[in-house]
Amino acid sequence: MIDDSGTMTWPSRAPKPLSAAALDSIDAWWRAANYLAVGQIYLLGNALLTEPLTRDHVKPRLLGHWGTTPGLNFLYAHLNRAIQERSQSTIYITGPGHGGPGMVANAYLDGTYTEVYADIEQNAHGVQKLFRQFSFPGGIPSHASPELPGSIHEGGELGYALSHAYGAAFDNPNLLVAAVVGDGEAETGPLATSWHSNKFIDPLQDGVVLPILHLNGYKIANPTVLARIPEDELQDLMRGYGHTPYIVSGGFDGEDPMLVHARMAETLDAVLNQIAEIKAAAAEADKNHEDFARPRWPMIILRTPKGWTCPAVIDGVQVENTWRAHQVPLANARDTPSHTKILEQWMLSYRPRDLFDSHGAPVQKIRDLAPAGALRMSANPIANGGLLRRDLHLPDFRDFAVDVPEPGATVDEATRVLGGYLAEVIRLNPDNFRIFGPDETASNRLAPPVYEVTAKQWNAQMKPGDTNLARAGRVMEMLSEHQCQGWLEGYLLTGRHGLFNCYEAFIHIVDSMFNQHAKWLKVTADIPWRAPIASLNYLLSSHVWRQDHNGFSHQDPGFIDHVVNKSADVVRVYLPFDANTLLSTYDHCLRSVNYVNVVVAGKQPAPNLLTMEQAVAHCTRGLGIFDWAGTEVPGLAPDVVLAAAGDVPTLEVLAAAEILRQNLPDLKVRVVNVVDLMRLQSEDDHPHGLSDSAFDAVFTPDKPIIFAYHGYPWLIHRLTYKRHGHENLHARGYKEIGTTTTPFDMVMLNDLDRYHLVMDVIDRTPGLAARAGLLRQQMQDARLAARQYTRDHGEDLPAVTEWSWSSQTDAAPTAAETGSDNV
Amino acid sequence: MIDDSGTMTWPSRAPKPLSAAALDSIDAWWRAANYLAVGQIYLLGNALLTEPLTRDHVKPRLLGHWGTTPGLNFLYAHLNRAIQERSQSTIYITGPGHGGPGMVANAYLDGTYTEVYADIEQNAHGVQKLFRQFSFPGGIPSHASPELPGSIHEGGELGYALSHAYGAAFDNPNLLVAAVVGDGEAETGPLATSWHSNKFIDPLQDGVVLPILHLNGYKIANPTVLARIPEDELQDLMRGYGHTPYIVSGGFDGEDPMLVHARMAETLDAVLNQIAEIKAAAAEADKNHEDFARPRWPMIILRTPKGWTCPAVIDGVQVENTWRAHQVPLANARDTPSHTKILEQWMLSYRPRDLFDSHGAPVQKIRDLAPAGALRMSANPIANGGLLRRDLHLPDFRDFAVDVPEPGATVDEATRVLGGYLAEVIRLNPDNFRIFGPDETASNRLAPPVYEVTAKQWNAQMKPGDTNLARAGRVMEMLSEHQCQGWLEGYLLTGRHGLFNCYEAFIHIVDSMFNQHAKWLKVTADIPWRAPIASLNYLLSSHVWRQDHNGFSHQDPGFIDHVVNKSADVVRVYLPFDANTLLSTYDHCLRSVNYVNVVVAGKQPAPNLLTMEQAVAHCTRGLGIFDWAGTEVPGLAPDVVLAAAGDVPTLEVLAAAEILRQNLPDLKVRVVNVVDLMRLQSEDDHPHGLSDSAFDAVFTPDKPIIFAYHGYPWLIHRLTYKRHGHENLHARGYKEIGTTTTPFDMVMLNDLDRYHLVMDVIDRTPGLAARAGLLRQQMQDARLAARQYTRDHGEDLPAVTEWSWSSQTDAAPTAAETGSDNV
Repeated sequence: MIDDSGTMTWPSRAPKPLSAAALDSIDAWWRAANYLAVGQIYLLGNALLTEPLTRDHVKPRLLGHWGTTPGLNFLYAHLNRAIQERSQSTIYITGPGHGGPGMVANAYLDGTYTEVYADIEQNAHGVQKLFRQFSFPGGIPSHASPELPGSIHEGGELGYALSHAYGAAFDNPNLLVAAVVGDGEAETGPLATSWHSNKFIDPLQDGVVLPILHLNGYKIANPTVLARIPEDELQDLMRGYGHTPYIVSGGFDGEDPMLVHARMAETLDAVLNQIAEIKAAAAEADKNHEDFARPRWPMIILRTPKGWTCPAVIDGVQVENTWRAHQVPLANARDTPSHTKILEQWMLSYRPRDLFDSHGAPVQKIRDLAPAGALRMSANPIANGGLLRRDLHLPDFRDFAVDVPEPGATVDEATRVLGGYLAEVIRLNPDNFRIFGPDETASNRLAPPVYEVTAKQWNAQMKPGDTNLARAGRVMEMLSEHQCQGWLEGYLLTGRHGLFNCYEAFIHIVDSMFNQHAKWLKVTADIPWRAPIASLNYLLSSHVWRQDHNGFSHQDPGFIDHVVNKSADVVRVYLPFDANTLLSTYDHCLRSVNYVNVVVAGKQPAPNLLTMEQAVAHCTRGLGIFDWAGTEVPGLAPDVVLAAAGDVPTLEVLAAAEILRQNLPDLKVRVVNVVDLMRLQSEDDHPHGLSDSAFDAVFTPDKPIIFAYHGYPWLIHRLTYKRHGHENLHARGYKEIGTTTTPFDMVMLNDLDRYHLVMDVIDRTPGLAARAGLLRQQMQDARLAARQYTRDHGEDLPAVTEWSWSSQTDAAPTAAETGSDNV
Repeated sequence: MIDDSGTMTWPSRAPKPLSAAALDSIDAWWRAANYLAVGQIYLLGNALLTEPLTRDHVKPRLLGHWGTTPGLNFLYAHLNRAIQERSQSTIYITGPGHGGPGMVANAYLDGTYTEVYADIEQNAHGVQKLFRQFSFPGGIPSHASPELPGSIHEGGELGYALSHAYGAAFDNPNLLVAAVVGDGEAETGPLATSWHSNKFIDPLQDGVVLPILHLNGYKIANPTVLARIPEDELQDLMRGYGHTPYIVSGGFDGEDPMLVHARMAETLDAVLNQIAEIKAAAAEADKNHEDFARPRWPMIILRTPKGWTCPAVIDGVQVENTWRAHQVPLANARDTPSHTKILEQWMLSYRPRDLFDSHGAPVQKIRDLAPAGALRMSANPIANGGLLRRDLHLPDFRDFAVDVPEPGATVDEATRVLGGYLAEVIRLNPDNFRIFGPDETASNRLAPPVYEVTAKQWNAQMKPGDTNLARAGRVMEMLSEHQCQGWLEGYLLTGRHGLFNCYEAFIHIVDSMFNQHAKWLKVTADIPWRAPIASLNYLLSSHVWRQDHNGFSHQDPGFIDHVVNKSADVVRVYLPFDANTLLSTYDHCLRSVNYVNVVVAGKQPAPNLLTMEQAVAHCTRGLGIFDWAGTEVPGLAPDVVLAAAGDVPTLEVLAAAEILRQNLPDLKVRVVNVVDLMRLQSEDDHPHGLSDSAFDAVFTPDKPIIFAYHGYPWLIHRLTYKRHGHENLHARGYKEIGTTTTPFDMVMLNDLDRYHLVMDVIDRTPGLAARAGLLRQQMQDARLAARQYTRDHGEDLPAVTEWSWSSQTDAAPTAAETGSDNV
């Protein structure tokens, strides 16, 4: 295959056995990496064993994981050889991220580590520092964490190795992603479905993922399932997943590793040649405008002993090739002299004198195994994707604005309008932006506009009648939130852009994946050599208030609560309430870096409230006063503040304000809307937080605040508990009451409806209860009437669905909201 | 196989084709169920089409899902026939719970629905009500929700059908669980790994799960992956999962359903006979004390058109056998006259005159297909597990108490002590209680005691050297939190007891599953015929403060925040801080019903603080004053309150109190500990909430409260924002700062350490700053010294790890905490 620059990529190589010298170099690398990994776990001093090992050389706390490490090192060494021969751009994803010491060792051996951390030199002094810092206070973490060059996958929480790998491969046609799947991790749900990613990879425009299932047989305290099924069953499973499996097994019962090296090298060549053939065939078919069937991409099953090369038996108990090798064999290496001795013998078994020269640097044959420059897996810029990130070409979102002659005069589905904008984003960024969703992109109404410019990428069978499916496309849909999240993370971490659209309730499926990504972002912000990556953008629709078809199980607005627990430097939450505010918000999100942006938006037809000019001003401030909706008197404090965040609450607040205007015209009502939820927090707690004086200027320090919120109401208290007016704040929201019923019945069930908001105003505004008793009773009656109508007719009263500002008030709204001067 | 009562179970049946009459009955049932399902989705009136269908007969809002329904009905009809012939106790789990209208129809046809809801009679009047109530305000939800007799699985959030099915099968040796897996749901991670449950099922003591993969080919808007891979690949996948696949395909291109019925009946007989053979072979081997290999349990692949029997083409667009049949075909059936007509024709195509008699009751041949009594899948008491729930035989947890001559005088690993108690629970309840965990039961230190009485159930290969594995055992370990949660839910929903032990951070993996279970519990509490089930008990250990080996990715205490968003009637959160409080707490949890109990506990050696008598009193109250730790003067208000929740915070608070006692002996410090976190909430918000006066009596209404909390500190504010003293409350906790470092460094990083707590007391107690400046400086110095020592030595200063109350104070603590009189 010839790439754009005319270079031959994905070369095939005539299979021939490796020379003894080549195998010897691979083995030397492997032993050196193993030595350095053991040293990191155990040693404080005497790093190169230049003197007999004593108690004081051993760390007081031994914290790390050995079990998976030798396998990861073995593969790294072999991949080095192949990369060098083929000049094959490759990154390495280690599902068992617990093998951190091994990955640090490999990055050190190929020189990347020293380039990134200059004080970890390639000499005895550097080795000493390398050992000490590992899993040590003030040093580096024990996993393949962000501090590790070449890593885009910590693997602390298991299950996402393949999803990340495929995410990295999309739109990187010349990239090989070698993805090691641990057999423990293989039992997780997300990993189990991620094998099917191969139905979504395009042999032309995407790179190649080479899954390597590393069967070392044991987890923390158990054998693994996949290591304990017959080999034919395992091969059936891999074939059933759509792969052609290749098996390498060895190292058991003391087998000479050189034999295993030979088998591995041979298999790796065969696999890479098969990949080259697939790539070439696809290119040829494409040239001839022919279809080609989904390839059965190769994968490798590597079966080696857990903890391979560690002491086989310690104190009469088998350690190597059991779960006992998982973490730290010889846990008392410091205080049990016989164990100190065993540790020394273990480390000497790697023959360090042959691996490090008199200065402590890796010997030439090891250094020569490292590919050149960016071909080193630890130095590949794709694994520091921010370096490659290009800003999106963004259209002017104002061009997609909906017309709003006055608030509520027009109606749109906000996400469908956004879909028009996103279609243009796709058109302008054909290789740099993707939309991910679990079969919900159409349901969330980004379609049809998006499908007018692209398709859903689909490499499984197609049939007549299929719509919007193509071998290559910008929309990735699989019914797995885990896959959507993992793919997108991998895509972003390698320097691209995207968004994940999802039903609001089911985004909780990836709560823990969000956690890990947010943690990764927090840590990378403090690592100077990690360049910023594009933000992870959520678009949550089909939200709690409009689950008409599905009811209670589909109603959960709690992802926001989950997100705000994470570092304020990383998370942003937006609740645009109409088409123009959604456009303005999303434009902002797509320009940002290193954040997680959570945007919750409605997909149902809803009144447009702000012109684009107003929307931009409002979203820029993040919150503001809708003076056109309130009944304030200039220069006087309001009597009560009606605040809202979210599309449904905003409409209910506007309707409540209208009722108050009609019935209590002298009541000074301020209407506030919050789009950027983090504005509520103190500026001490979040970069978007308002100062106390700005907060007071909007919400008042002492007036009743009735706050209608999209989600669980207590979140508003949690965000505002430090504010002056907090004791006057009364929040309404989703109280975990729901079913399949009408939209207005849903808000009534949770006391978020306009009538109840008016009752709240009456109950909480000093002096109002006495003079508004009749109105309060009318509100009660209106609720009962609405309820009864719904039960009788199965639909809402027209009065609560056909909201239109202009039809309800004589006074035209003033031109724009105010509030900009206040905050 | 002969069961306990001497009855033959799992009978085999000589295969012979069904008679035409038998097939006709099955088809009649199927048509009736389809008719009733369509009627529920569309009709308000004219239920039996006794007059021409008009606009007014059609519901104004059409809310439900048709696509999966005919397949579910088809299987239900066929299972009825087989159950009747074999008297086989069977429950039916429908992964695509969206087929709610079908499942309601089946429960109605077999009479269960009318038994449970007496006003839905089996006559024209009842059919009318049945139709109207579906997905209608004031009626029933659209899914296989708790309101549906026979359901233990709503299927609203997809992915858990097989996990629930296996959970139901454990310890139900005579139960068949027919579990329909939708091909959409099959793409989810949890479902993809749940196939491997068959390595954990014991052919002797457990029941049988019959997975039925229903390939109808389409999701909401896409084809499904498994329907678009070649059939040999799909069969490889099922064989790789360890099953023997049987394929039934039909109904395409107008194929006569009678032909499909015949194939289905034949296959079902073959499958059930194979199951019978497996069961018999296992029983025989067991009788002969022989081992037997894990069976390749059969499974069925059923390939039928999505929306089968609905109008094939509407307005020129293909609907049947496409994703367009997913939800509601004919969305405008009310307002488009031609569509009203199509709907009428569709319903008439089922020939309702042949299905319902002149009173509107199902005709005899349909009624005769229903098995008798509890053999009806909708009436099987196993699917209303509370009916079968037996209280656990619980040992006296006091017998497992650790000796506490004085606070801190002894040290234990709390979870290991709990393990001793749980071992006895297991011994006393050999068929009614299981422990679930993702390979962490040993790491969480319930072992070794638990493995002295039982093993981990494991039906994959065993090898020499394997420990604590057996064909049958009470501990279920697979490296999938989803599986642990799903299995446990299925086990509880069918009337048994259990707990899920997990690393604290990774319980977020099942956030969404917890959501669904909590919602299920909330709804069932209002359904009189649903009997209470045992609580879902979490034991979260390896918590945020002690992730010495793993660091930041393993640090997340936010599950508590997630849980408290759900209905207060359902959720309970406990933070026992030592062995005796953990024992007392867990005894309480194992006795409770219809809750989710979240218990967070330490596994590391930690000082025991309370005698068992004190622990019981403390846990019964849920919180209390440690007067032995404070420096209060009887009759006088304290100057400051030091409160703690969680094991590590409690020790830091005690150490801080000790520093204050030594250095500011006249300062009146109250030490409070909270075990039951929900005590902090208002009694209006949670049943466990303290009254305001009781809260004030413990925390004071006006003194500074320094609250050291296990998790994210803002949760304390969220729970207490309505309290009088809230503005004086200052919470410390995990601020999302962590890495692999020492335990004390971790608390210092988050300002939760004793030194910082003392500084907080000095800063926030009126008048103290002026006279305690020196102590404050000493605290600063102590932090710096501790930090430096850790960086130099890689371990904590002995002074902060070897905490012992008695060694630090002259005054022996008083006999017991007080506080009982206060609250």
